[in-house]
Amino acid sequence: MSGILYGVGVGPGDPELITLKSLRLIKSAEIIAYPKLEGSESFARTIIEGFIEFPKKEIVMEIPMSEQRLPAQKAYDIAAETISSYLEIGKDVVVLCEGDPFFYGSFMYLHSRLSGKYKTEIIPGVSSLTTCAAVANRPLAARNEVLTILPGPLSEEELSRRLSDVNSAAIMKVGRHLQKIKRVIGNLGLTKFSYYVERASLKEQKVLKLADAPEAAPYFSMILVAKGEDPWL
Amino acid sequence: MSGILYGVGVGPGDPELITLKSLRLIKSAEIIAYPKLEGSESFARTIIEGFIEFPKKEIVMEIPMSEQRLPAQKAYDIAAETISSYLEIGKDVVVLCEGDPFFYGSFMYLHSRLSGKYKTEIIPGVSSLTTCAAVANRPLAARNEVLTILPGPLSEEELSRRLSDVNSAAIMKVGRHLQKIKRVIGNLGLTKFSYYVERASLKEQKVLKLADAPEAAPYFSMILVAKGEDPWL
Repeated sequence: MSGILYGVGVGPGDPELITLKSLRLIKSAEIIAYPKLEGSESFARTIIEGFIEFPKKEIVMEIPMSEQRLPAQKAYDIAAETISSYLEIGKDVVVLCEGDPFFYGSFMYLHSRLSGKYKTEIIPGVSSLTTCAAVANRPLAARNEVLTILPGPLSEEELSRRLSDVNSAAIMKVGRHLQKIKRVIGNLGLTKFSYYVERASLKEQKVLKLADAPEAAPYFSMILVAKGEDPWL
Repeated sequence: MSGILYGVGVGPGDPELITLKSLRLIKSAEIIAYPKLEGSESFARTIIEGFIEFPKKEIVMEIPMSEQRLPAQKAYDIAAETISSYLEIGKDVVVLCEGDPFFYGSFMYLHSRLSGKYKTEIIPGVSSLTTCAAVANRPLAARNEVLTILPGPLSEEELSRRLSDVNSAAIMKVGRHLQKIKRVIGNLGLTKFSYYVERASLKEQKVLKLADAPEAAPYFSMILVAKGEDPWL
């Protein structure tokens, strides 16, 4: 019997925003795996380190800092091979996922490589999307509003086309795309409805009106556009 | 000094999908408030009842089963008045919110009435969106994909227009709109990418290909459309 692959959401950063279920699985796991960007600590590992109570086998997935497709694919190929070597001998593997495993997470790359061969179970987590809205104290969407989630790396044209037709939007992965996104939002007259949130739920968290956003944004930042004109409110 | 209004996400239904932070606030609360649809139990109250350890003051917000605007508005006016009577005398009030407070939740109606007057803190929760994806074992979106959240009550034309231009979509609040939504998805040739999820994370949960969905859907059901052709996978 093969082991089970668990994709476990650990929430947005504040360790208290982990669920009871994720915590139970992590505490009882014999083997945990997590991504680590080249040259920095593993964010997912940091979130849960206060909870780990006994030694475990840890599989570190080293992901190169590259926008090229091949080096990252290669890193996930290697991680998938290591993980499957444990699954094959009947050991379960708990993969730690920042936020939620299926919401713009890197767990997808393991899932596509392994879920066809091994039993897979996903434990959802609190996503950065709802956390940013919570700390900004701005509702995302209600009743019959459409909510559009846009990745910041999209082209200026595509962002503009999508944003011109939204009730409410969240722009993820802002990072080095901040100036482009500000320009698009400004051109559409949406700046007054827009908020900038950085490292939501961590002590370094920042929440600002978009007009007051810093010059440079980290990868873990988001812009919320909420026109919020629901007549029921 | 006035009390604090807490909007606390209790997750999608499985009590184990509550966060440590929400649980701490609920356990220590002196006053909790929650919505209850006319003629049925409070779903939010059900999720946390196994955790309540001592008697509390409970404010039940009775919401009429009506698609009319006025009766629901009136119910939230009354609830907001009751809650503010406690906030005024310096008592905190913890409002239980199914899923996440700011993701298509009824907490918005209290928020709009009270957050301008009282200190408000929102604790995000695991949303039905990521829970449905998790139990269906279908990633929502990755890398540069756009994710569109659509309420089922939208008109056939609007659903069709929006769905013809998505990478990945989730249709919420399916309920009595199921047949209309199936028709729209069928006309766009998206049925083979679509999943139906009912009561995700509860023991009565159902996950089906859309083509196999039942004739009638409960309010707590969702349809996921994931074309999922990410070249990185």
